[in-house]
Amino acid sequence: MRQDMKQLFAYFDSELPGVNSFLDTETAKLDGLVREVSRHVLLGPGKRIRPVMTICTARTLGFDGDVMPLACSLEMLHSATLIHDDILDDATLRRGRPAAHVSFGTTQSVLAGDVLLALANRLGAQYDIPRVNLLLAEGIMATAEGEILEMAGLDEPVVDRERYMRVIIGKTARLIETACRCGAAVATPDRELEDVAGAYGLNLGIAFQLVDDALDYVSPSDTMGKPEGGDLREGKVTLPLIHLFEDIGEDEAAKLLADIRNHELDEAGQQRVLDMVREGDYANRTRETAARYIDEAKAALNGLPDCLERKVLSQAADFVLSRKK
Amino acid sequence: MRQDMKQLFAYFDSELPGVNSFLDTETAKLDGLVREVSRHVLLGPGKRIRPVMTICTARTLGFDGDVMPLACSLEMLHSATLIHDDILDDATLRRGRPAAHVSFGTTQSVLAGDVLLALANRLGAQYDIPRVNLLLAEGIMATAEGEILEMAGLDEPVVDRERYMRVIIGKTARLIETACRCGAAVATPDRELEDVAGAYGLNLGIAFQLVDDALDYVSPSDTMGKPEGGDLREGKVTLPLIHLFEDIGEDEAAKLLADIRNHELDEAGQQRVLDMVREGDYANRTRETAARYIDEAKAALNGLPDCLERKVLSQAADFVLSRKK
Repeated sequence: MRQDMKQLFAYFDSELPGVNSFLDTETAKLDGLVREVSRHVLLGPGKRIRPVMTICTARTLGFDGDVMPLACSLEMLHSATLIHDDILDDATLRRGRPAAHVSFGTTQSVLAGDVLLALANRLGAQYDIPRVNLLLAEGIMATAEGEILEMAGLDEPVVDRERYMRVIIGKTARLIETACRCGAAVATPDRELEDVAGAYGLNLGIAFQLVDDALDYVSPSDTMGKPEGGDLREGKVTLPLIHLFEDIGEDEAAKLLADIRNHELDEAGQQRVLDMVREGDYANRTRETAARYIDEAKAALNGLPDCLERKVLSQAADFVLSRKK
Repeated sequence: MRQDMKQLFAYFDSELPGVNSFLDTETAKLDGLVREVSRHVLLGPGKRIRPVMTICTARTLGFDGDVMPLACSLEMLHSATLIHDDILDDATLRRGRPAAHVSFGTTQSVLAGDVLLALANRLGAQYDIPRVNLLLAEGIMATAEGEILEMAGLDEPVVDRERYMRVIIGKTARLIETACRCGAAVATPDRELEDVAGAYGLNLGIAFQLVDDALDYVSPSDTMGKPEGGDLREGKVTLPLIHLFEDIGEDEAAKLLADIRNHELDEAGQQRVLDMVREGDYANRTRETAARYIDEAKAALNGLPDCLERKVLSQAADFVLSRKK
């Protein structure tokens, strides 16, 4: 265990059983058809970042009630969007296992996603704090809009770093921001404190996705659950590839982009691109971008009271940046 | 115009422009990919029963604020479930027009449903009344559970009138109940009044679906948007058919049920069933069952203050029962 992240790992160790047990209990109550899909996705391997973020922000701001239903509602929202996104993307794998719609069918997966969205809203509503439900609704909205933006971008002739950022903010960062804002909202009506928690979450979320996209170009398949260069193979353009495009010039970039999107790169062609990304050190440059967002996230934490949970949030930021898988 | 429903029609005439204009404005703000799907479904022909129920119950209980966002959130929830259900059922037609997923693809339809669910929750959250969001969440949950129950029933060897009731309550009645409960909740914290409004909505919703299922066996294709006996052709077992099963005896019913479910009835076989349903007057018997729920709905109205909107709610109940298409 890394000494500088001691509190982080201890915190996850102490909170995860509660998170997992709550998710277990809630999904066990669901009707047969969607119960198995929900449990497949929710009880499978997952980092549980969102619920722990909610727990930490709530406690940092002095909430001493039962935060677990709210924390788990964030994991449910996240899982619901994963289930639906996998149908959209026609993905076959999710976290190294068959995607839900592959194992259980599109029908069950659409329904399971809907039920988890509703369940999350219901759990949130039980806190009797209207702001919480507004945040959950806006989180779902932003996540769907990110997905929409990504799909619309597939028809665009050029890669656009600004659009890439908008997509990862929508698809990933907003819901992590929501997790932090919800933790704050349940603890205090002070909107400025919620904004501070939100700024931490948003920046952490952006960095998280940037690192994920960087790892896709370096991680061996046995640790990540997906093969190296999976994004490239799927025709998905992320920051490491955008760096490459920027360096090889407009014409060549346009040609390469078209080949990637039309899945016209053969194995050797893909390997050539992977080699170029490695030679250009583009994955590390992506990580450097992530580092700037991590700095922002940690700076935001200064606006929260100093306590164990704030340390955990700070170490979580370091962990996001340093993770190797 | 039928004189005994004068206020009802006048009320719809006065409120529908506001409902349609709100839905138009809100869906116009959505992102391109889902905007067209949402508008196709939300701005197409529709009875707008749910939003008008919300408007009426809110005003009956003295709410004088802007009820339109809440009312329209109910129509959005309804549309979202229609869009997703059509994917599940692999339906080709909806209200006489191609189903959204046929015109726009599964991808856009899953997303459009999610966005409408989120938008509805957001609109509801803006009222700052936690109860409203709890009701919306439970309404979505019940609707999904009704769909689940229906799909699970496809594997059951017998038809079950009790299960049929649970399915139509879940799939249809609960959301109409939710529309009425939301109208009450926005007007008053009095839970007993909300229960009265809910009882009206639940019974109205059950009757609505019963009449719908009756009409499927009598309506000519040009008024209903779907061909007569469409449910039979789709292998969907509703009350008129359950009446037939009950009358022809267990063995023959089991055989017929299997044929219907396995789509093994040819055109002549289907016509024979339609004839038997007509001869047994089973559609009318279904309508008689609906009449009992309409009585319950109207009885519930006695618990609300007497006013124009209560008259409209009462006439709406009569209309649901008497409608011919």
